[in-house]
Amino acid sequence: MLFFTQCFGAVLDLIHLRFQHYKAKRVFSAAGQLVCVVNPTHSLKYAPTLCAAAQTSTEQGILPPCHHHEAVHDPQLVPCMCPLFSCPWEGHLEVVVSHLRQTHHINILQGAEIVFLATDMHLPAPTDWIIMHSCLGHQFLLVLRKQEKYEGHPQFFATMMLIGTPTQADNFTYRLELNRNQRRLKWEATPRSVLECVDSVISDGDCLVLNTSLAQLFSDNGSLAIGIAITTSKIHNSEVEM
Amino acid sequence: MLFFTQCFGAVLDLIHLRFQHYKAKRVFSAAGQLVCVVNPTHSLKYAPTLCAAAQTSTEQGILPPCHHHEAVHDPQLVPCMCPLFSCPWEGHLEVVVSHLRQTHHINILQGAEIVFLATDMHLPAPTDWIIMHSCLGHQFLLVLRKQEKYEGHPQFFATMMLIGTPTQADNFTYRLELNRNQRRLKWEATPRSVLECVDSVISDGDCLVLNTSLAQLFSDNGSLAIGIAITTSKIHNSEVEM
Repeated sequence: MLFFTQCFGAVLDLIHLRFQHYKAKRVFSAAGQLVCVVNPTHSLKYAPTLCAAAQTSTEQGILPPCHHHEAVHDPQLVPCMCPLFSCPWEGHLEVVVSHLRQTHHINILQGAEIVFLATDMHLPAPTDWIIMHSCLGHQFLLVLRKQEKYEGHPQFFATMMLIGTPTQADNFTYRLELNRNQRRLKWEATPRSVLECVDSVISDGDCLVLNTSLAQLFSDNGSLAIGIAITTSKIHNSEVEM
Repeated sequence: MLFFTQCFGAVLDLIHLRFQHYKAKRVFSAAGQLVCVVNPTHSLKYAPTLCAAAQTSTEQGILPPCHHHEAVHDPQLVPCMCPLFSCPWEGHLEVVVSHLRQTHHINILQGAEIVFLATDMHLPAPTDWIIMHSCLGHQFLLVLRKQEKYEGHPQFFATMMLIGTPTQADNFTYRLELNRNQRRLKWEATPRSVLECVDSVISDGDCLVLNTSLAQLFSDNGSLAIGIAITTSKIHNSEVEM
């Protein structure tokens, strides 16, 4: 009986996944774009007990400061940069990807242009949607975070980081694009290195920021589709192409 | 003596204006783009005494609701839609532009693509930067507003409205673009009609929204350059061009 219940649940999950995939395909119908359904994870790292010590400011949801400079004894070792968990792991930059895949089960996708479909946007903050993106010979970490910088007013923050050094990151440009309901919002920037810590990028607001009402305008039935593209050229360095 | 002091002041203003114009030209160096320096106006309409009655919510800076439906007796007459002042004027839609120019001294610019250079972004909320834009046979009202939706946390809201009916507005797409420091942010949408009230568009957050840190990243010495383009085609209606 338990077996049948589980089978039925799995079939329902598959139907739900297929339906969400179809919806994203309908929105981003350009040929060859990979749509990836990303489920949310309630961020254990920022549970109130952990945060309490860091709340010196009046702002809510202040995150613990990055601690990898203190934690790393060998300068060639980096800590785990999974934004979800406080993980004691440390290792060389080259093995961060395999650690994130194997220990934290973060998916990795191939392709220069993908669609990140974040589900269940209504879930309370703090919540993270995370995926790795393999492209142009490098791996990137895409983080969408729902966080309350101001108490009672959750915002969404999306950024892309290179799993590499800041110098390597300077060679790329990433673009995040939302498109729905006759509205389009595009954010383009140079990715930051994961060594710079995703928490500080988000607390600085140097990323795509959406308030709840804009997120709702761009969402379809609780899911937000973000088109992602990575290029090597720095097209926005000099002039605006109007 | 007073005459010389005033002359000296005028010369200083001209030098300052020329300097800001040069800075905007340097950022938006595409040929043929008109750069318009827009000075801020502290919004008298939303002075605390006027707002007090409307503050039924816990959010700060809630604006008085639009009152043109109650105020207009002749359905062909519309009230003054200048967001700056509570103005008792009402008239036909066709004469709104001349009223805004003559009574409220709002500038009007020609051209499909212009650069709106808002000065003195540091001024406290509520502050408005307003200009009219004549293009494709119609007049548009561009409003940039600094407002505290959440007490102590001012945000910038930018929107473009057609001085015309909602049906006419549906034929256009406007684009606002910020480009500086290796970052680019683009917002595209169908303009709303001024009959729909700029206050409700901003309180709904259905516009380009910038928090203070992003506004600082895009500003140059306290001035924010916004590239504006208006087209008749609805390019973002169906698909994302990735």
